[in-house]
Amino acid sequence: MGGAAIGIDVGGTKIAGGVVDGHGRVLTREQVPSPVGDAEEIVAAILDVITRLDADGEALPVGVGAAGLIDLDGQVRYAPNLSWRDVPLRALLERSLGRAVAVENDGNAATWAEFVVGGAIDARKSAVMLTLGTGVGGGLVLEERLLRGAHGLGAELGHMVIAEGGRRCNCGNLGCLEAYASGNAIGSLAVEWRERGEIPDGSPLDVDGVSGPTVARAAADGDPTATAVLGEIGRWLGVGMASIANAVDPEIIVVGGGASAAGEPLLGPAREAMAARLMGAAYRQQPGVRRAELGADAGLVGAALLARPETAGARPPQ
Amino acid sequence: MGGAAIGIDVGGTKIAGGVVDGHGRVLTREQVPSPVGDAEEIVAAILDVITRLDADGEALPVGVGAAGLIDLDGQVRYAPNLSWRDVPLRALLERSLGRAVAVENDGNAATWAEFVVGGAIDARKSAVMLTLGTGVGGGLVLEERLLRGAHGLGAELGHMVIAEGGRRCNCGNLGCLEAYASGNAIGSLAVEWRERGEIPDGSPLDVDGVSGPTVARAAADGDPTATAVLGEIGRWLGVGMASIANAVDPEIIVVGGGASAAGEPLLGPAREAMAARLMGAAYRQQPGVRRAELGADAGLVGAALLARPETAGARPPQ
Repeated sequence: MGGAAIGIDVGGTKIAGGVVDGHGRVLTREQVPSPVGDAEEIVAAILDVITRLDADGEALPVGVGAAGLIDLDGQVRYAPNLSWRDVPLRALLERSLGRAVAVENDGNAATWAEFVVGGAIDARKSAVMLTLGTGVGGGLVLEERLLRGAHGLGAELGHMVIAEGGRRCNCGNLGCLEAYASGNAIGSLAVEWRERGEIPDGSPLDVDGVSGPTVARAAADGDPTATAVLGEIGRWLGVGMASIANAVDPEIIVVGGGASAAGEPLLGPAREAMAARLMGAAYRQQPGVRRAELGADAGLVGAALLARPETAGARPPQ
Repeated sequence: MGGAAIGIDVGGTKIAGGVVDGHGRVLTREQVPSPVGDAEEIVAAILDVITRLDADGEALPVGVGAAGLIDLDGQVRYAPNLSWRDVPLRALLERSLGRAVAVENDGNAATWAEFVVGGAIDARKSAVMLTLGTGVGGGLVLEERLLRGAHGLGAELGHMVIAEGGRRCNCGNLGCLEAYASGNAIGSLAVEWRERGEIPDGSPLDVDGVSGPTVARAAADGDPTATAVLGEIGRWLGVGMASIANAVDPEIIVVGGGASAAGEPLLGPAREAMAARLMGAAYRQQPGVRRAELGADAGLVGAALLARPETAGARPPQ
């Protein structure tokens, strides 16, 4: 069990944990529903998962990835989907466990996992991850390091403005990438098209409350309307990718989250839209765009990798 | 003259050079008009400026900042305003001079200068620069290092898409930050308002071909219409700043280029628009927004700082 660590992913619906080895393999798992109560209950639930994973009392290193703005001191400043504000998560966990705990934004943790052992393992120095779920999360690895930002609040890539004055985002602003290219946006767009009468009768999308996964399945079965919906979302995704690529010129962009299961009908149009908007596209390399590989495990795997010094700052030696 | 280096700034209209000391002070200057001919003539003109600056034959280190996409090998891939494509600038200069030459994008060079000895000198680790001129240039310093990107093509911040499908940019795409918040955009907006009859008779903006500097001067004199024009441009600038801040969470954003002379009538609205679009704004620090300090010298000073190892990777010891 050399190099193992406990990784925890604190999400809006569940707290998932695992013992993870130095190559990012999940050896054992535990999970509990996220408490709907206050921060104290969430912290207690996290400690419960850690205790269960550390059943042998080995005091394994612990890393925690959590949704929200988390500063460099491991304090959760703000989380849209959890009832905590200004919670000193790292300090609370360290006090209870009596040892150091790495606390990181979940998107950053997932990005680190994809860079070190996942879909961007062949990137030399840089990778971007965009996670399409309820919203759009993300992370940036630049010069072989996870970008945390001056205050630890970097890589809120879903809130880059790509259409000022446009669609309302969950964050309250207008025109964020998240408002156009999240997993939820796929279902919403299908509903919109249906309300406008643009879904042919008998299409698999011609159902009440058509969802993202329904659209993805229909596109996989060759339904042209579903393919068109994913194409439209993909083009918006590509606009965001172009902004990111023009800004930081990464080697690889990996796309994760549930909606990434849609695959090429989503990623093909994203690649094209990005290429069309890259500065000097004809004279430069373009970032590779591909699916993430670690699925729902990315967050906990990344948190575990960040918990050990030898995998927190660079890839482990092969 | 300990720590001195030659810095060259290759622009669309002139090639400006200087001998710069280790604190960024320009000791002597030379400049020639940019040749309208091919790359060979531009390189010859650069060498001419270098030779004049190095009159004592000291073989000072040389750094060159040039407009365009410049890769990690110092090759100019593409420059919108100069007639060169795929020119191995660094190799050509090194062959002629017989010594190493640092070649960098001019926006990156200017950003490095502002971080090391200019408007962001008090930033601990990170700063962003936006240069408002004909277009919008930029640069990123993250974790105390100039971000070059995977292929050296990073920090084309003016081509982040902030209004997909919107105004036509010089690069051919629609909705880039540059199309909304460049120095040229200030004059264009005033012209547009005048054509729509929104400039009151007798206003200093009620003239043919009203330009950015005219607007800035009128705003400085308290003209409300000029202030409104700058406010509109500033708000677009702030949208771009919000995208950048959400993506990389910098400490300071410095605004340079001719249009930055407009000062607070431009930067105040930019700050407000940025703050309104920051993810979790109420729970986080916001980047400081201020004018750059080195003016037109930023590019050549940065190029010179990048030419010496002791000022190329970090600030010099005080």
